[in-house]
Amino acid sequence: MHEVKYISSTQNPLVKKVLLLKEKSRERKKTGLFVLEGKRELELAQKAEYQFETVLFCEQFLTVHEIDRLKTCFDPRVLISISREVYEKIAYRDTTEGLLAVGKTKPHVLESLRMKTQNPLILIAQAPEKPGNIGALLRTADAADLDAVIIADPKTDLYNPNIIRSSIGCLFSRNVVTATTEELIEFLRDKKINSYCAALTASVDYTTVDYNGATAIVVGTEDTGLTGSWLKSATQNIIIPMEGKIDSMNVSVSAAILIFEAKRQRRK
Amino acid sequence: MHEVKYISSTQNPLVKKVLLLKEKSRERKKTGLFVLEGKRELELAQKAEYQFETVLFCEQFLTVHEIDRLKTCFDPRVLISISREVYEKIAYRDTTEGLLAVGKTKPHVLESLRMKTQNPLILIAQAPEKPGNIGALLRTADAADLDAVIIADPKTDLYNPNIIRSSIGCLFSRNVVTATTEELIEFLRDKKINSYCAALTASVDYTTVDYNGATAIVVGTEDTGLTGSWLKSATQNIIIPMEGKIDSMNVSVSAAILIFEAKRQRRK
Repeated sequence: MHEVKYISSTQNPLVKKVLLLKEKSRERKKTGLFVLEGKRELELAQKAEYQFETVLFCEQFLTVHEIDRLKTCFDPRVLISISREVYEKIAYRDTTEGLLAVGKTKPHVLESLRMKTQNPLILIAQAPEKPGNIGALLRTADAADLDAVIIADPKTDLYNPNIIRSSIGCLFSRNVVTATTEELIEFLRDKKINSYCAALTASVDYTTVDYNGATAIVVGTEDTGLTGSWLKSATQNIIIPMEGKIDSMNVSVSAAILIFEAKRQRRK
Repeated sequence: MHEVKYISSTQNPLVKKVLLLKEKSRERKKTGLFVLEGKRELELAQKAEYQFETVLFCEQFLTVHEIDRLKTCFDPRVLISISREVYEKIAYRDTTEGLLAVGKTKPHVLESLRMKTQNPLILIAQAPEKPGNIGALLRTADAADLDAVIIADPKTDLYNPNIIRSSIGCLFSRNVVTATTEELIEFLRDKKINSYCAALTASVDYTTVDYNGATAIVVGTEDTGLTGSWLKSATQNIIIPMEGKIDSMNVSVSAAILIFEAKRQRRK
């Protein structure tokens, strides 16, 4: 029987590797690896059949039962026990779950997208910049059980640790792909999916549109909104009527309002 | 005519004061002062008749027109020109608006709350922890032109720089107060305002409730939800039906879904 390896030195090359993977998108792309943290995140990724190269755990933060579960789930050559010092060096400052893993990324390409239903409801977000917003979008997509979330013209790779973290693992449980705007407009036309594009310049109240057909809700960035290609190709441009002094909602908030109006109509 | 004072040293006591006010809630409470950053934020606070002790500007980031406007708006004894070095020491790392101000806080007590309409729509958030969430709530409140936003049992003071920043100034433009849950339950009863409390354990779909009367939408924290006092005193506990694997939306997202359903009904 294999012994589980133990790392106590923060100078160990694996520590450097984990930190690099967390910090550098380039490194993630080059190696096809990413780092996740947390029990729920690991569980969701396992369910989604992600493959893991290394699973690091800090005994002090886990119960005997949890450690046993790890030993049942993973090959002992994958498991590595780490000292508290190492854990604190590589984990988020405020986490105490005691668990990190280095996994293999998946492609997330449009070609791999399979809708769950015949009459899909999907969300497309163009070029969202803040990882936290993408995480919130994924959580909303999970709650609404959307068929897919598509990031058009991505500005960041999906395995950015702040996306994984703010999505609390929904990145793994949801159908998420990235593509260019051009590919997506063709895709929607091909699949006969209606596109409803959120625009501050639109004149149609989002609550007056019928979302019962195959529907893509499309949102842009908070600063510049959707590009002309989207607005021109839309089945309908829609607006959330705003009455305030600022009239700028968080993109994940606007998307949720639109998605849950579609859900409301579809429940009736 | 007064000359505008110039500060070039990061050792100047004012620099220390601004940093303390940004970092320490205790300092804000003790002095009754707070710090804001940004042009829009300053403008909104001015419109809301906030008083300013000091307005700091870094010439390199402002147009001549903007500097002239400052000199028209403020007493020259209030205006202070600062070096780029000083600006970079006291401003957010990623901002280049060149403008900060030290203002006097307002009380934000329940007694000062005046509803704008006879048939108010208000949002109550119990003990939200993340300043970014409070900022997003305030932006949504602005877009929906809510009569008031009330923070029950606050965990942080409203002048936390991250609240000001993430609300992009909506803190100043909106009617925001804080109070205890007990005070609020009595207040709602007194004013005959219906309370609809979001709860994962509720059985009534939020879209089936009528929000046309005087309405308070009440949301709790993401971790623990609303306390028993709220759920017991509610006109109706409501749920956003969720169908996912995680079923945990960001609190500002849930609040927006509920608020905009009420708005939809009221527009009809």
